Amino acid sequence: MAGVAAAGAGALALTHGQATPGTVATELVSDAGGAIPFYGARQAGIVTPAQDRLHFCAFDVITDDKAALVDMLQDWTAAAARMTQGRDAGTFGAVGGSLEAPPDDTGEALGLPASGLTLTIGFGPTLFRNAQGKDRFGIAAKRPAALADLPKFPRDALEDAISGGDIGVQACAHDPQVAVHAIRNLARIGMGKVSVRWSQLGFGRTSSTSTSQATPRNLFGFKDGTRNLKAEEPQLLDEHLWVQQGDGPEWMTGGSYLVTRKIRMLVETWDRSPLAEQQTIIGRDKSEGAPLTGKQEHDEPDFAAQDGEGQPVIPMDSHLRLAHPDQNGGARLLRRGYNFVDGSDGLGRLNAGLFFMAYQRNPHKQFVPVQNNLAKMDALNEYIRHVSSAMFACPPGLLAADDYWGRSLFA
Amino acid sequence: MAGVAAAGAGALALTHGQATPGTVATELVSDAGGAIPFYGARQAGIVTPAQDRLHFCAFDVITDDKAALVDMLQDWTAAAARMTQGRDAGTFGAVGGSLEAPPDDTGEALGLPASGLTLTIGFGPTLFRNAQGKDRFGIAAKRPAALADLPKFPRDALEDAISGGDIGVQACAHDPQVAVHAIRNLARIGMGKVSVRWSQLGFGRTSSTSTSQATPRNLFGFKDGTRNLKAEEPQLLDEHLWVQQGDGPEWMTGGSYLVTRKIRMLVETWDRSPLAEQQTIIGRDKSEGAPLTGKQEHDEPDFAAQDGEGQPVIPMDSHLRLAHPDQNGGARLLRRGYNFVDGSDGLGRLNAGLFFMAYQRNPHKQFVPVQNNLAKMDALNEYIRHVSSAMFACPPGLLAADDYWGRSLFA
Ligand code: HEM
Ligand code: HEM
Repeated sequence: MAGVAAAGAGALALTHGQATPGTVATELVSDAGGAIPFYGARQAGIVTPAQDRLHFCAFDVITDDKAALVDMLQDWTAAAARMTQGRDAGTFGAVGGSLEAPPDDTGEALGLPASGLTLTIGFGPTLFRNAQGKDRFGIAAKRPAALADLPKFPRDALEDAISGGDIGVQACAHDPQVAVHAIRNLARIGMGKVSVRWSQLGFGRTSSTSTSQATPRNLFGFKDGTRNLKAEEPQLLDEHLWVQQGDGPEWMTGGSYLVTRKIRMLVETWDRSPLAEQQTIIGRDKSEGAPLTGKQEHDEPDFAAQDGEGQPVIPMDSHLRLAHPDQNGGARLLRRGYNFVDGSDGLGRLNAGLFFMAYQRNPHKQFVPVQNNLAKMDALNEYIRHVSSAMFACPPGLLAADDYWGRSLFA
Repeated sequence: MAGVAAAGAGALALTHGQATPGTVATELVSDAGGAIPFYGARQAGIVTPAQDRLHFCAFDVITDDKAALVDMLQDWTAAAARMTQGRDAGTFGAVGGSLEAPPDDTGEALGLPASGLTLTIGFGPTLFRNAQGKDRFGIAAKRPAALADLPKFPRDALEDAISGGDIGVQACAHDPQVAVHAIRNLARIGMGKVSVRWSQLGFGRTSSTSTSQATPRNLFGFKDGTRNLKAEEPQLLDEHLWVQQGDGPEWMTGGSYLVTRKIRMLVETWDRSPLAEQQTIIGRDKSEGAPLTGKQEHDEPDFAAQDGEGQPVIPMDSHLRLAHPDQNGGARLLRRGYNFVDGSDGLGRLNAGLFFMAYQRNPHKQFVPVQNNLAKMDALNEYIRHVSSAMFACPPGLLAADDYWGRSLFA
């Protein structure tokens, strides 16, 4: 973020306790190290090679005033365009403005580079019609069919307080301090218009979204994200990830739908199960991540293969089989989840798991059938519990600096 | 952690569903990138230049069987010695052992380097005599006077469930996945003997513990750790950090006492206060971190300096003045805290703050007077709330591979 030295430090040191007028042009001097372009046909943070750290935040809109909301979205856009380029959230920044006013940046990212920060916005079902059925902003008619509420799945143990949300913002970066700084400044800017409904930190990515990345491991110790949609497959992305013309309302063409599920993993129970059992539950080996019918991570699974006793080598209730496109009418997802540990659960165990995130063209044709399949039969279910759920319509990217988040929806 | 390729991956791929006997010597092939020595006169993780990420865990001992506890501490020591060198927690690891047995490593750090991991252990007051006053392990007589319970401070808002603990383990690393992996494997090894009382992730260090490090920023946007005890000041460390011969029981000589305080920071309120007010509350400027009477970060504060109206330039109720050794009989601390964000607080705000940790020779002569001073008068109090507290006696380091955590206390 904006270099402190250039942000008027000397001047400030001379003027403690006095009002310092004037705005310092921090734009000119900022460190944009590792910056990812904010403007583009697609929002960054979807096929962008998954960064290591996450801060996700779901906001409730607490104003009914459309103009106020639109104002805030404009301010958010300006701040996001700045922060993703390694700058302060506002024009005078954490240390450059008047001493008599609150800074327009909170300061904890001063001196840090952009760190690959991406900010990705999405709009939840309740923005179009709230829990009381009210169309607060006159946009109910623009709600895409694909954003219809998710069904209740077998075994769901969802907590309302950490589910849903009117607006979702995903901040990903290589440095968690940078991701937290970004969310915190959006919350600051939105004060009085939005409030934080829930927020989630993720410390380790559990997916690759590019063939350039090594496959990371989740908290069950397995490689995760092997068979993910990847940035390098544009045709598959058009088929499975990006909303196409005619899919629904025009404002979502070129966008994507995000489903988030916070999934508690009962790591203590898992850690007591034998290696063989872990491997048959997943359908892959723990070392290489190869399907049980193969040797290498990227070998194609052979679902027909049988062992000496005529049993399928990749069990019928294995996660790999049940999640595979073959079992789901070809449906695929771009997974972009993160490991989390949220302290302990009050029962002597770590509160650990996977903050699952998946982007897709239509959740009702992709996430829903896959999750139905998994929720009914997955051998993994003994070790996991879905505790939160949310869904957001993420519009396409912004092309010009006078465009703003939500314009195509609100204007 | 142990390279998967070398850990018998080929062999495993051939033997899915069968029992694979034999132990793979993962020690020989592991990646020790960035490893910090485990053995030494002092425990690592105290003056070690503060790593970027933290996972702290406080355990309750749930067995009354001293031999079982000592067994576990021996197993923990062996695992800690391995993991800090970038190896698996156990000898056959996540993928090397029998398919019929649970792995002796959980696997999520496979392929990751040591990442500067340090594991630092401490023993809490309740290990010596539990809440019911019982001396479960016959060590009550060995309890150092310096480990007497902390007093209740004005404004304390402590939650019992996330305070205290019989044993504390601090895992610090550059990669959070490595720190989490270490704590999780200790919890796994301790199953049935200890349970997780509370655990805390920290994403950004708020202190430098070495002159080789730049000063980081806390979530109020200020440089934090400027005037900290540093590794390069051995005389000061002997005076303020390391327990000296004659201070108390011999088993603590060369050790240090850790006080942890989880401090919620009301960032939303802070963010609305003017820059001038923030600076007078801290007593330093936000840009450079210089005392209000100086220009550069490391300038000595001049507490006698007055402004044109005869008021002290560094206010009487500023954090800098109240925490300074001059106001506390010369007491100093080695601070080693981390920023945290634990989701939201259910009231529309981020649950953010500082996980304060400080090491010292005697908490009752150092932390206690400073905190008494701060709790009474600190202008910062309007913006913070102490929600958890714990204290641990951290013995000196282990010198030889046949020594183990707690031997000097239990043997
Ligand atoms: C904590 C819960 C979960 C864990 C531990 C987990 C773990 C894994 C692992 C280890 C793989 C194999 C490697 C790979 O191809 O990525 C995998 C694959 C997959 N998972 Fe999950 N998963 C979880 C939840 C889910 C959920 C909720 C969904 C969607 C509803 C899902 C969808 C998929 C898909 C689509 C694949 C790829 C299947 C293929 O194309 O071969 N997973 N998962
Ligand atoms: C959220 C709570 C806190 C915040 C935001 C905070 C922030 C700061 C900042 C910005 C500094 C100046 C830079 C430096 O010298 O490190 C500082 C100094 C210091 N703080 Fe804190 N602090 C907090 C809590 C505490 C607590 C609980 C203690 C101990 C009881 C403490 C003890 C100190 C000490 C000893 C100094 C150095 C004073 C000197 O030698 O000049 N702080 N703190």
